[in-house]
Amino acid sequence: MSQQVARVSLPDVQRPVAGELEQVVAELRRVIAADFPIVSEVNDHLLQMKGKLFRPTLLLLSHQASGGGRGLKDPRAVTLAAVVELIHLATLVHDDSVDHSVLRRGLPTINALFSHQIAVIMGDYLYSRAIIELVRLDDHEALRVLSRVTNEMTVGEMRQLEAHDKLAYGEGAYDELIRAKTASLLSGACEVGALLAPANYRQALARFGMLLGMAFQITDDLLDYTEPEAVTGKPSGLDLREHKVTLPLIAALARVAPEGRRVVEQLMEAAEPGDDLVAEVIRLVEGAGGLEVARHRALDLAQQAEAELDMLPPSPARDALQGSIAYAVERRS
Amino acid sequence: MSQQVARVSLPDVQRPVAGELEQVVAELRRVIAADFPIVSEVNDHLLQMKGKLFRPTLLLLSHQASGGGRGLKDPRAVTLAAVVELIHLATLVHDDSVDHSVLRRGLPTINALFSHQIAVIMGDYLYSRAIIELVRLDDHEALRVLSRVTNEMTVGEMRQLEAHDKLAYGEGAYDELIRAKTASLLSGACEVGALLAPANYRQALARFGMLLGMAFQITDDLLDYTEPEAVTGKPSGLDLREHKVTLPLIAALARVAPEGRRVVEQLMEAAEPGDDLVAEVIRLVEGAGGLEVARHRALDLAQQAEAELDMLPPSPARDALQGSIAYAVERRS
Repeated sequence: MSQQVARVSLPDVQRPVAGELEQVVAELRRVIAADFPIVSEVNDHLLQMKGKLFRPTLLLLSHQASGGGRGLKDPRAVTLAAVVELIHLATLVHDDSVDHSVLRRGLPTINALFSHQIAVIMGDYLYSRAIIELVRLDDHEALRVLSRVTNEMTVGEMRQLEAHDKLAYGEGAYDELIRAKTASLLSGACEVGALLAPANYRQALARFGMLLGMAFQITDDLLDYTEPEAVTGKPSGLDLREHKVTLPLIAALARVAPEGRRVVEQLMEAAEPGDDLVAEVIRLVEGAGGLEVARHRALDLAQQAEAELDMLPPSPARDALQGSIAYAVERRS
Repeated sequence: MSQQVARVSLPDVQRPVAGELEQVVAELRRVIAADFPIVSEVNDHLLQMKGKLFRPTLLLLSHQASGGGRGLKDPRAVTLAAVVELIHLATLVHDDSVDHSVLRRGLPTINALFSHQIAVIMGDYLYSRAIIELVRLDDHEALRVLSRVTNEMTVGEMRQLEAHDKLAYGEGAYDELIRAKTASLLSGACEVGALLAPANYRQALARFGMLLGMAFQITDDLLDYTEPEAVTGKPSGLDLREHKVTLPLIAALARVAPEGRRVVEQLMEAAEPGDDLVAEVIRLVEGAGGLEVARHRALDLAQQAEAELDMLPPSPARDALQGSIAYAVERRS
């Protein structure tokens, strides 16, 4: 991959598995179904909020690229893809509750629309449904991978709490945070897609997902600095407003003059920093090259991810996985 | 069992499995261990808060009473008992956060001592560790039972939210609530203890645990009306203060005169009902026979639970299970 990446749309990436992705939505609906009124109301809202199915896409592409397209097709793949999305949904519901977020994908969050209590309980409901479904599939390896990943994500959330208000927060801690919080589930999705494949394919795809996930999260953290609310569906500069320290700021702080550092300290001390202060810090981070460092790091990870795909035989699914890298680092929302 | 139950202490009940219960604590410590600072701090607090290990006791006694005492001993029983306690702990951490409780067993709750955020994340951490451990044990049936139970408990929590402020809340809804919220895990503990036993033993013990659990929860709800804070470790009349409708009130409302009903309505309308109002409603519930109805119901369930044990061969463990019924309905905290 050249440093100049061609823009790839998500529908392009999803084309080889488009039919299965439709089945994923139906499976998701079946797995979370409940006959208790509040639960099914929340479920309806969650299905409306349903995102781009990026994790199921990765699972199904990994499956196809590692042998599932050539006679080793596992009928459980669609259900596993739904379960991976379900685990993602469960963590979003709890994350939004922990962060007191009010918007997600342009729709009100469960905690905002219902209550924090309902968000906590619903996260548990969704996660336990995911486990029940994995037990029903009798897929011990998928359970092993996904229970480990879920636990890693909780540690990632703890690390996230640590990444508030801490100007001493460094790149090493940030790396561990994004691995645990985001990349572990993308890696798990790719690995679970390749459970029937030879071990070397499985391992390469697990590494691919981890590298892709890190690049994906760095891109997300960059968007907070670069994109307006109308594009991302959440207020720009939100991380700064919430005192979340991410790579652009970490990189900028290593290069900025003492006066600049004091402006950042001022923002971190303000309970609700004003728009001017947020805008000033964004300019400061950009001026100090923080965005540039983060972009380079994302592209470097993207290249490493691409190298992991070399081991797989050529196929439309492998091409789509390659496309998913470009999508992850070039997307604007 | 006669309606007059002899008082049985928990150490009496635990005697046949006392050695294993010590190992359970060590196993619990191993399973939740973390190298991340906040997580291990919270773990230390949780281990201090550790309760009476009633659920591990039931699992180990069920195991012994259904064959584990006569050559069919499963080396995994101690770990399974630790996992059942861990699932219980995870739900307590989330419940306390959802209910904004500040005390549990006389110690500050995780949400009070740390924060709501940490409580939500820690509950997820503990639950995912429980699943990882079940996967490691390679015990598919235990996973099946306990994932189902965990999901039922989340629906029970939703039902609990419904049981606030609702004077129309009836006995049928209350029964479903206590089955899901409390009895399902006691039933699961007994069933998992008997997974290697013949199916009729396993089923009888699952039913035993369900009936015992319902009697246990009704007794808990009674204690809120009858015992002072010094005995239970939580303020008396707390359920009423929090507008939780339980069996004593449901039964009393069915028999009380319109003036009495209006006093209860007054309490439900008060955001923070005063001590006098709470005391008046307690007297009203007692006067209308609400406590009596609840006591009878608990004893009736206790008798049904005891009948389920008839199928098992006589053993010290079976006697202890019988004793656990008396403990559940006669305890004062």
